[in-house]
Amino acid sequence: MESRQIIRDVEARVFRIPLEEPMQDARHGLQTYFELVTAEITCEGGQSGIGYSYTIGTGGHATRAMIDHDLAPMLVGRDADEIDTLYDEMQSRLHYVGRGGIASFAISAIDIALWDLRGRVRGLPLWKMAGGAGKTPLTYRGGVDLNYPLEKLVDSVGGYLDQGFTAIKIKVGKPDLAEDVARLRAVRERIGPSNKLMVDGNFGYDLERATAAARAFEPFDLVWFEEPMEPDDFAGYGLLAKATTVPLAMGENLHTEQEFRHAFAYSSLSFIQPDASNCGGVTGFLRVAKLAEAKNIPVCSHGMQELHVSLVPAVPNAGWLEVHAFQIDRYTHRPLVVENGRAVAPDEPGCGVNFDWDRLEAADAALRKAL
Amino acid sequence: MESRQIIRDVEARVFRIPLEEPMQDARHGLQTYFELVTAEITCEGGQSGIGYSYTIGTGGHATRAMIDHDLAPMLVGRDADEIDTLYDEMQSRLHYVGRGGIASFAISAIDIALWDLRGRVRGLPLWKMAGGAGKTPLTYRGGVDLNYPLEKLVDSVGGYLDQGFTAIKIKVGKPDLAEDVARLRAVRERIGPSNKLMVDGNFGYDLERATAAARAFEPFDLVWFEEPMEPDDFAGYGLLAKATTVPLAMGENLHTEQEFRHAFAYSSLSFIQPDASNCGGVTGFLRVAKLAEAKNIPVCSHGMQELHVSLVPAVPNAGWLEVHAFQIDRYTHRPLVVENGRAVAPDEPGCGVNFDWDRLEAADAALRKAL
Ligand SMILES: [Mg+2]
Ligand SMILES: [Mg+2]
Repeated sequence: MESRQIIRDVEARVFRIPLEEPMQDARHGLQTYFELVTAEITCEGGQSGIGYSYTIGTGGHATRAMIDHDLAPMLVGRDADEIDTLYDEMQSRLHYVGRGGIASFAISAIDIALWDLRGRVRGLPLWKMAGGAGKTPLTYRGGVDLNYPLEKLVDSVGGYLDQGFTAIKIKVGKPDLAEDVARLRAVRERIGPSNKLMVDGNFGYDLERATAAARAFEPFDLVWFEEPMEPDDFAGYGLLAKATTVPLAMGENLHTEQEFRHAFAYSSLSFIQPDASNCGGVTGFLRVAKLAEAKNIPVCSHGMQELHVSLVPAVPNAGWLEVHAFQIDRYTHRPLVVENGRAVAPDEPGCGVNFDWDRLEAADAALRKAL
Repeated sequence: MESRQIIRDVEARVFRIPLEEPMQDARHGLQTYFELVTAEITCEGGQSGIGYSYTIGTGGHATRAMIDHDLAPMLVGRDADEIDTLYDEMQSRLHYVGRGGIASFAISAIDIALWDLRGRVRGLPLWKMAGGAGKTPLTYRGGVDLNYPLEKLVDSVGGYLDQGFTAIKIKVGKPDLAEDVARLRAVRERIGPSNKLMVDGNFGYDLERATAAARAFEPFDLVWFEEPMEPDDFAGYGLLAKATTVPLAMGENLHTEQEFRHAFAYSSLSFIQPDASNCGGVTGFLRVAKLAEAKNIPVCSHGMQELHVSLVPAVPNAGWLEVHAFQIDRYTHRPLVVENGRAVAPDEPGCGVNFDWDRLEAADAALRKAL
């Protein structure tokens, strides 16, 4: 047995990281940067672990404040290896100002740090700790491209193929459905019939429009239609699933185990897409994966590919890893490795996400100067 | 028409306020203080409005950070009187790190400040702006008393009667149901058959235990059984309602319009209990009230009686005002006024909640010293 790892210190930081180019989807407007919140847990013996979360531009400082004021005081002096106990206690402590929201982001960052620490202490990589079923997930490149003119969209998709991807996701949700169909047709033509294709609606539709869109998308052999409607509209997803043959997916905006239970109960999803940065870290992700396994639903991911590369393939019901346009992995010492169209999980002990702090600081400073 | 009120500044503060004595319910453990987060909005012409939220001990600093970093920059330069527009924009801006959780607390504080400002500018009290149906709600005193021995419980209830209350709520959720029944019997005996009685389970039960408890409580002529189960277990409430004649109530832990819609759709509630401090302020409360009206459900409240006294009676489907044990009103210049068992809404322009800042600062400083 390992000796107890008593937590001595928890330190949270916020960075704003500029996007290489502005991005747009159906609901979030034009985005020019994202926020990265890091949490470092240090134990009395000097061992440490790094966790993190990210936002699409707001909430980073609130997440840090919650770690500093509400979680750190609870964690100091505790055994870092009692992850399940600490997880449940964090959820309970923050229930009144949860459930979900910033509490989920803060808990995620801490939980990931605890798993990183455990892996370093035990000498185990995350993909093994998370189940060990595999380490090379099915992988797709997700574009945030609703603002791209058609030609640029087709070019970007071609670029993803050149990079070795064999599965690609584009955004949909133009005011005129015919335009989405035209974009989809052009993209399908560009990638050919054998490469895989997904679309993402970022809850820009109501049930009526989503139904029309799903039916119009049926000829394009989609792997899934992601998040057509408000993530809370659990029953609406169930109705949509009845009205189309296109498989449905969502999960990036579900933050609590209860929300995932509602989705599994009512939404007739073909894929679930938890994001460990906002559903409770590694622990939250693995609990969702367990629920999904009981329903025979493959587990995919949203964002933070440098971490999810170790989680998605590790479970028996492995789905698809998203390679997101917010490229956090470029600010680590091991940007995502993709071989033969599939990403490869790192074998080093811990979560395998080691930030390049100098680059993070420089990016944040440059952005501050520009604003 | 009023001239436009351009927002110049938003200032948030956090205070920790000690409770006069430690309190306990079925799920939140022993509480010794609460957090008050205030937000002051000042316009270019010098007009200002005060809003606030509160927590049961965690999340106050995260709420302030969200106001400072995510909401204030969006609000400065905007017309303070466009409340509905600003409300929807705040929700949209924080959706990714919402929905609910800290975002709801932060939006609530800002929204209340905007209504306070509007009332001051227009010379209207909140109860009139909120609908004007009435200003003296049915009122009950809610105890946080699960840790009280039986004799102290009965004494405390007697004390509420002495203060002029004619309706009283106690906590339930003892490990042994027989003890809850004995406490309920003693309290009913003490208050007699004509005074009203409610119980609050603070989601300490699962469906099976809640069903047994509700049936055991049936002889005591309860107005309602509040929050027996997890607030997210919408369908569970519907099943419980079928199994007992005791009316069900909840709402203090629902933070988004979607959550309230789920409750109205699935939970067979007899009363809804939104809290303007965590469901979107005055705007959020009134939107919930509208949804409830369509379902013929009376609107009650949770906490912050000094504000809800103006909201509950103002709508056509007025329910009961809770006088909560977190007595924020004692830190204002008008502690709650109760006449003939009913509270009375203030007639002064704005929300009618004017903090005694010196007392708040002193309470916070004393607590810091003690910890
Ligand atoms: Mg998506
Ligand atoms: Mg309650």
